[in-house]
Amino acid sequence: MKFQDASIEEIDIVMQESWTAFHKYRKISLAQRASFMRSIAEEIEALGDELLHITSEETNLPEPRLRVERTRTLFQLKSYADACERGDWLEARIDTAIPDRNPPKPDIRKMLIPLGPVLVFGASNFPYAYSTAGGDTACAFAAGCPVIVKAHPAHARTSEMIAGAIKKAVQKNNLPEGVFAHVYGTSFEVGKALVMHPNTKAIGFTGSFQGGKSLFDWSNQRKVPIPVFAEMGSINPVFLFPEKLQTSAGEVAKMYAASITLSVGQFCTNPGLIVSMEGNGLTEFIYELSNEIKKVAPAKMLHAGIASAYAEKRKLAMSQADVETIAVSEVEEINAEGLPAIASATAQAFLSNPLLHQEVFGPYSLIVRCKSEEEMMQVVQQLEGQLTATIVATENDVNLYGKVIDAVKNICGRFIYNGVPTGVEVSLSMHHGGPFPATTDSRFTSVGADGIKRFARPICYQNWSNDLLPDELKNENPLNIWRTVNDQLSKNRIEEF
Amino acid sequence: MKFQDASIEEIDIVMQESWTAFHKYRKISLAQRASFMRSIAEEIEALGDELLHITSEETNLPEPRLRVERTRTLFQLKSYADACERGDWLEARIDTAIPDRNPPKPDIRKMLIPLGPVLVFGASNFPYAYSTAGGDTACAFAAGCPVIVKAHPAHARTSEMIAGAIKKAVQKNNLPEGVFAHVYGTSFEVGKALVMHPNTKAIGFTGSFQGGKSLFDWSNQRKVPIPVFAEMGSINPVFLFPEKLQTSAGEVAKMYAASITLSVGQFCTNPGLIVSMEGNGLTEFIYELSNEIKKVAPAKMLHAGIASAYAEKRKLAMSQADVETIAVSEVEEINAEGLPAIASATAQAFLSNPLLHQEVFGPYSLIVRCKSEEEMMQVVQQLEGQLTATIVATENDVNLYGKVIDAVKNICGRFIYNGVPTGVEVSLSMHHGGPFPATTDSRFTSVGADGIKRFARPICYQNWSNDLLPDELKNENPLNIWRTVNDQLSKNRIEEF
Repeated sequence: MKFQDASIEEIDIVMQESWTAFHKYRKISLAQRASFMRSIAEEIEALGDELLHITSEETNLPEPRLRVERTRTLFQLKSYADACERGDWLEARIDTAIPDRNPPKPDIRKMLIPLGPVLVFGASNFPYAYSTAGGDTACAFAAGCPVIVKAHPAHARTSEMIAGAIKKAVQKNNLPEGVFAHVYGTSFEVGKALVMHPNTKAIGFTGSFQGGKSLFDWSNQRKVPIPVFAEMGSINPVFLFPEKLQTSAGEVAKMYAASITLSVGQFCTNPGLIVSMEGNGLTEFIYELSNEIKKVAPAKMLHAGIASAYAEKRKLAMSQADVETIAVSEVEEINAEGLPAIASATAQAFLSNPLLHQEVFGPYSLIVRCKSEEEMMQVVQQLEGQLTATIVATENDVNLYGKVIDAVKNICGRFIYNGVPTGVEVSLSMHHGGPFPATTDSRFTSVGADGIKRFARPICYQNWSNDLLPDELKNENPLNIWRTVNDQLSKNRIEEF
Repeated sequence: MKFQDASIEEIDIVMQESWTAFHKYRKISLAQRASFMRSIAEEIEALGDELLHITSEETNLPEPRLRVERTRTLFQLKSYADACERGDWLEARIDTAIPDRNPPKPDIRKMLIPLGPVLVFGASNFPYAYSTAGGDTACAFAAGCPVIVKAHPAHARTSEMIAGAIKKAVQKNNLPEGVFAHVYGTSFEVGKALVMHPNTKAIGFTGSFQGGKSLFDWSNQRKVPIPVFAEMGSINPVFLFPEKLQTSAGEVAKMYAASITLSVGQFCTNPGLIVSMEGNGLTEFIYELSNEIKKVAPAKMLHAGIASAYAEKRKLAMSQADVETIAVSEVEEINAEGLPAIASATAQAFLSNPLLHQEVFGPYSLIVRCKSEEEMMQVVQQLEGQLTATIVATENDVNLYGKVIDAVKNICGRFIYNGVPTGVEVSLSMHHGGPFPATTDSRFTSVGADGIKRFARPICYQNWSNDLLPDELKNENPLNIWRTVNDQLSKNRIEEF
């Protein structure tokens, strides 16, 4: 057994080392953290194409797709390193003393500091970008937190290679070993022991609702509850409006056939629900979408568990009362998995059947046909929190259906206009999160450098002399970061009084 | 019965109105929100000194103390209104499109939007500043959320008057009535029904650990869990170091006698634990502190429940093995409550008795005598999360005991040097929060305008045309707010491409 489950004793040792490392790592400079993160990127790059071969074997994802994901992962590490050094995320605030106020106003300065060891559970569908050295790990390192990764069993060899790259970067940057730990475990007990360990101070997770909700519940049952950021997926509703469909049904259908089936539908931003009003435009859209879906070949999914879950959930959804099959792939494939398929239901059928609101993880989408704007509004009001929602509309549509569109905005984290939800840009402006059950905390993102703030908390220094303050808050602003000084953003040094 | 408990049906009506109001209130401009908040301050001011008389009757707090708290409350409303309009809290981020990238990079813009109706539970010890129109309410209004206040039964008449002022401001600003609701309830059921209602989207609470933890647990058991910011108090440890005591024991003792007994010790930042190393300095400090404490008169506490809890907890703490009474007030008072008292224990007694780590809410403090720096370190490592921790030391002490001081920093939200923890400045640099059990979420503050962010979440607009974007994110920056544009903070307009 190469990848043996960690024992409770081994987990305790790992967590003790992580805790010891935390007290060293939290004190290194932003520049040193950034340099460490850039080293990780270099070491991953140095693994070369051997990494792609192994990951492709483990995940059935084609190498070109993995190459793009590797580039994205390196970009994450490097761009979050830049953000770490830039220091905006520290939310540095300074209010200078007013000694002659009654009572005297003390000097008060605030910045974010790391929470402590962060436990990361990666996702099977992004073996690089949301896994061992993915966004959660990068954000935690930027915040000043050690990381413990529980290796995803579906790509354990990939995870081991990436862990090796991180460990090399730890050594090259003269950091304590405990800054990064890599734990194997297929059993429920390993995950729970890591979550419940007192030295674990926060959790990042990407995966299923069941998985994320368990972590959330365990964390809240701890003597000292800890923050959990679990991204648990979404059906990513798409709303198609009449004028847009009248003019562009074919074009929209092509765009959506591609989005629904991209990477065998294995994205948390996959458009699993399309809502529209009955009419010629929708009829044409459905016709065009059917033609496109029929032409897309089935393909191997990430692993047998995902393939069988997809087959079961899709069949169950498509066999519900008043659900009509619109199209399935007509391309014959040996060992076919991940069959592209679309179905349709009336708004009334959808409203009365909660099963149809559930995510079917794979290349599947349900089209909900509404008789009126009111019915569409009812659908929106019944939807749970979503990572994304998309409006496909002309400006006339937007003006005409403003009320529905405004309600859609209130249930999602990312709000897309005339586009597709797949494709999550890595940028500061990205929000990859959303109201529960899309995530466990809608106030944070797991993509973009704002994700660093999930793993940090403010500390406020009152009345400390300049030489005892951390560099980030010193009068002379030696790191040249943006700070809010007496309510005004500034990079200026603070004059002594 | 003037203040009758709300029924489940009444609570449901209140929460429906709040939800309806939310969809109007969230769309008004920052300037309109600020104007509403300033109106509330005016209406509270217009209540005049009648308000102070009634509150003093209800809480036993003297009018001069209440006058200061009223000023603070008005300042909170007005300064958070300013912060609301300034818009830094929106965390506006813009990444402009790169159409010729492969694949094309879309235009992405992000800002914070309100969570929805916020439920506020005020504190008995701050009938204005942490109650009906206190910090939580002000932050929620600034964020764009309606507020439902559960009136504190210990100052129901005060709460009713303040609620009346808020309702006047609602009318004067032509806002929907449901923007603010005031619910009475002494029973457990009223609080729980409000927490569990699906339209409640976040909770602000200041009070006991038991109260806050119940809200936290209920919220996490909801079908859709919601964020709870509960500030649950703290023992606010103070660390006195040798050189400082050698030179200033008497001065430090005077300062601490005042802090321990301020407002009959009824502050969540009351210094309940003083930790030091044995020696002449500590002996002198204890002697001087005793003399001061003996001279402080007992006084009526906020209500009978708090007075009896104080008496019981103090007696229990002082009767523990190896706990020695150092001094109690020698001032005789009729109807004496809130007896100033200090006790002392060895570090070993403290380390072996968890009861001594608990908050004794009132004018009481325990002095823990350590034999060595190592013992002091053990005490720090055993302490739970704290709102504040204070270092009383010379710069030599800081250099000599850096390891202990660094460990102290890691357990607190506010870190004070040569001062007292009582007195919480209302400023952006303030952090009133701390690791659990000081609060349920150490990443947020309940004092200062950063508290607005507790009640808001990001939304990300992808590919929207300029005229469909909210003002905060439009190219021309009509609100003249700070935004991070392509990773750089700026107030500039964005050039069209």
